[in-house]
Amino acid sequence: MGKEASRKLEWRINVSDGVSERLEPETGAILRAWTWFKRLMLGGFILKICKFLEKAWNLAVDEPKKVIHGLKVGLAISLVSLFYYMRPLYDGVGGNAMWAVMTVVVVFESSVGATLGKCINRAIGTFLAGSLGVGVHWIAFHSGKNLEPIVLGISLFLLASAATFSRFMPTIKARFDYGIMIFILTFSLVSVSGYRVDRLLELAQQRLSTIAIGASICIIISMLFCPMWAGDELHLLICQNLEKLAHSLDGMFTKTCSKKMKGYRCALNSKATEELKANFARWEPAHGRFSFRHPWKQYLKIGASIRNCAYCIETLHGCVDSETQAPPHLKRHLNNICMRLSSSSSNVLQELAFALKTMKQSSKINLSVGEMNFAVQELKHALISLPNHNISIKNPSPSTVEASGNCNTEPITSIRASSSFMEILPLATLASLLIENAAKIEVIVNGVNELAVLAEFKPTTDNKKSKSNQSPKKLTSENQDPETVKIPQKV
Amino acid sequence: MGKEASRKLEWRINVSDGVSERLEPETGAILRAWTWFKRLMLGGFILKICKFLEKAWNLAVDEPKKVIHGLKVGLAISLVSLFYYMRPLYDGVGGNAMWAVMTVVVVFESSVGATLGKCINRAIGTFLAGSLGVGVHWIAFHSGKNLEPIVLGISLFLLASAATFSRFMPTIKARFDYGIMIFILTFSLVSVSGYRVDRLLELAQQRLSTIAIGASICIIISMLFCPMWAGDELHLLICQNLEKLAHSLDGMFTKTCSKKMKGYRCALNSKATEELKANFARWEPAHGRFSFRHPWKQYLKIGASIRNCAYCIETLHGCVDSETQAPPHLKRHLNNICMRLSSSSSNVLQELAFALKTMKQSSKINLSVGEMNFAVQELKHALISLPNHNISIKNPSPSTVEASGNCNTEPITSIRASSSFMEILPLATLASLLIENAAKIEVIVNGVNELAVLAEFKPTTDNKKSKSNQSPKKLTSENQDPETVKIPQKV
Repeated sequence: MGKEASRKLEWRINVSDGVSERLEPETGAILRAWTWFKRLMLGGFILKICKFLEKAWNLAVDEPKKVIHGLKVGLAISLVSLFYYMRPLYDGVGGNAMWAVMTVVVVFESSVGATLGKCINRAIGTFLAGSLGVGVHWIAFHSGKNLEPIVLGISLFLLASAATFSRFMPTIKARFDYGIMIFILTFSLVSVSGYRVDRLLELAQQRLSTIAIGASICIIISMLFCPMWAGDELHLLICQNLEKLAHSLDGMFTKTCSKKMKGYRCALNSKATEELKANFARWEPAHGRFSFRHPWKQYLKIGASIRNCAYCIETLHGCVDSETQAPPHLKRHLNNICMRLSSSSSNVLQELAFALKTMKQSSKINLSVGEMNFAVQELKHALISLPNHNISIKNPSPSTVEASGNCNTEPITSIRASSSFMEILPLATLASLLIENAAKIEVIVNGVNELAVLAEFKPTTDNKKSKSNQSPKKLTSENQDPETVKIPQKV
Repeated sequence: MGKEASRKLEWRINVSDGVSERLEPETGAILRAWTWFKRLMLGGFILKICKFLEKAWNLAVDEPKKVIHGLKVGLAISLVSLFYYMRPLYDGVGGNAMWAVMTVVVVFESSVGATLGKCINRAIGTFLAGSLGVGVHWIAFHSGKNLEPIVLGISLFLLASAATFSRFMPTIKARFDYGIMIFILTFSLVSVSGYRVDRLLELAQQRLSTIAIGASICIIISMLFCPMWAGDELHLLICQNLEKLAHSLDGMFTKTCSKKMKGYRCALNSKATEELKANFARWEPAHGRFSFRHPWKQYLKIGASIRNCAYCIETLHGCVDSETQAPPHLKRHLNNICMRLSSSSSNVLQELAFALKTMKQSSKINLSVGEMNFAVQELKHALISLPNHNISIKNPSPSTVEASGNCNTEPITSIRASSSFMEILPLATLASLLIENAAKIEVIVNGVNELAVLAEFKPTTDNKKSKSNQSPKKLTSENQDPETVKIPQKV
């Protein structure tokens, strides 16, 4: 206010007598500050818009599917609008055309499954609520002029409350959330309407037909032009997560491309996405390699075991980062074996991803799992022979043991021996986490094997099928007694 | 079809001449099968409904808030319906009453933030699209009868495509997803409408006023009757996750109540919920202990560090489950110290949860962190002195060392010594994961400290505030050189 007053003053003085010399420095500063502020605001705004457009461009380049979806929605809305615009039965925004347009805008989702699910939900919800609404309306109409609003109000209150509460039930929420919203909406509209029942039925028929037109345009466009199937996306997501874990395990000791190495982090938080896509996929008809009743639930199981593995890899990465001052020769020795285990684990995951991608039973998976388990045994053996190595190199004289026999005094030599144990510990932890991780990978292998049975993956050759069922059990039993295992010459 | 035919046949025979003796066994079997089938179906259906109702009842008992939300929605819809039912301006389902009802059904969400966000989105989206639509309509109207549908179609296609694509941008999706849907809907409706511009403006004003009535009923009811704030829920969620981690760590070695122990699993997958609630919370006005610009983003940071800690605990639980055959005295010794560390870690988390809950700077947090770090040092010390213990008890004679000096031959004594190393390994892994976990807990402590600064938590006493800022740094520096630390007599 003060500033504005002074600016007004300035103009008056400038205009009236021209003695602006004395005042100019102050008003000039204010003006300059104002233009500077404006430019800054405008610049900031333009900068923000530019950044936004750049982000949008990057998104469009990364995922052209999203641009295609945008175009499809535009096409569907234009079609339904022009269809009604051209027809003589058109009677303004309040008319039935509105419902067709609204159906398209609200129902059209990026995946076919979501669109189909919403269409079916909308149809069932509208139909059920419409019938129920007409019934309640009839009862209210016949219960007298005074009771009518009370009957309507109470029934509306009870049904809307119960339906809203049911939307919180997990089973309902997953599949019928939208349908229940439409149920509430239609029921309220019908019970509020002042029409008689016969007029209502006519209206309902008109409305259902416009909704059907909107919904069928949505379904046709979403299924015919570059269809995006939620099932495909779920399948791809699981494959990609497997590959990301494989890359993370593979690059764990090389540390060359850190972005690829951190890929497993995508798997950590993919639960919500997987569940959403699995729910949508259940609405989809048979398409491509997937039948109508493809075992989508099994994908969720595999996803859960992938996440379990990712948690382990997250902890592993923490161990790799907090590297220690272990003696270099030991470090190299253990590191080499750990690297072999992590790369063979990575191989198993990559084989699984390949098998899932091609939907064929992999011929190499048993070999890969075998290699991984051999690497596990090798690592266990290395750990067994570790203290000897360590003590033999660090303390060549037998005095250490005599000292260590006496626990209370703790001479310097004993501390040297024991601190070397502390030095190996991070590596040993890393090793035992890698062994733990291998066990988790076997759970994934089992999950994928189950999927192969459920979804009837084609075998590459028949004689290998029987082996794949036995191998996991055999391998875990081997894990329990490490001393009975032979170590291969070359893994 | 065959069954139906035979049943028809049966009836005809029974009625016509009564010679039903010969046919009865077959038709009776079919009838019985049919009634059995009906009963089974009906029984299954009733059983399903009973199960559903039981689930609903349990949900209602567990979370009465959800019942309250249902009642609130019922109340709002009844109110707005009756309001329009009573008023003379009411003119049927196609009229303006519809928009008020629709606004209530679509906009009313369980938290105040979500409802407010949707209302604001709806208002802005409707207003922007309305203005733009009127403009485009004016241009189309003045470009001639032939060009009109083309101009309308192209503008609709472009705008709907662009707007739909923009819904995929993460920043837009988080805050304005609903607004953009409404924008597309309104723009399509306006551009499709055959009205002249002056009629459109009148219509827009009517519609905006009905939407305003619906929205204000929603906002009033959601804020006045048992308001559920998304911010409160986010705050509570973070507190609960902290407590769950604390319980999991506390119960790790006792294994008494496994349900409490597995509580950390809730924290593993809470990212989506946290982000949703934080987005809603940003729309909320000041309420209770939270100001309008409460640092909700910091909660997401704390949530992320809690998840990091939960990943570590997940791996830890795997280690606890795969317990080994370590010598009992060693196991007891290490287990005791591990238990002390896990219970002091649990204490820190519980202190944090308490500080967050009361929104006061905890006076005990520094003490707890100190205790945790002492326990870390104690555990490190125990690990350092471990091989001596082990060797001294397992191999009292010095022959082991002489043998281990000679790596290639590997006599029995050396294998005994080394296998004992393998036996400790799981415990050692457990211990080093616990140490790792303590470091992750300190990250949470830092996050909560930052929140305390940002949200201006009240200090319990002033002189303790300065300490809390120093302690994390001091403690981490202590972690790096374990040999310089004194171990307390009693933790």
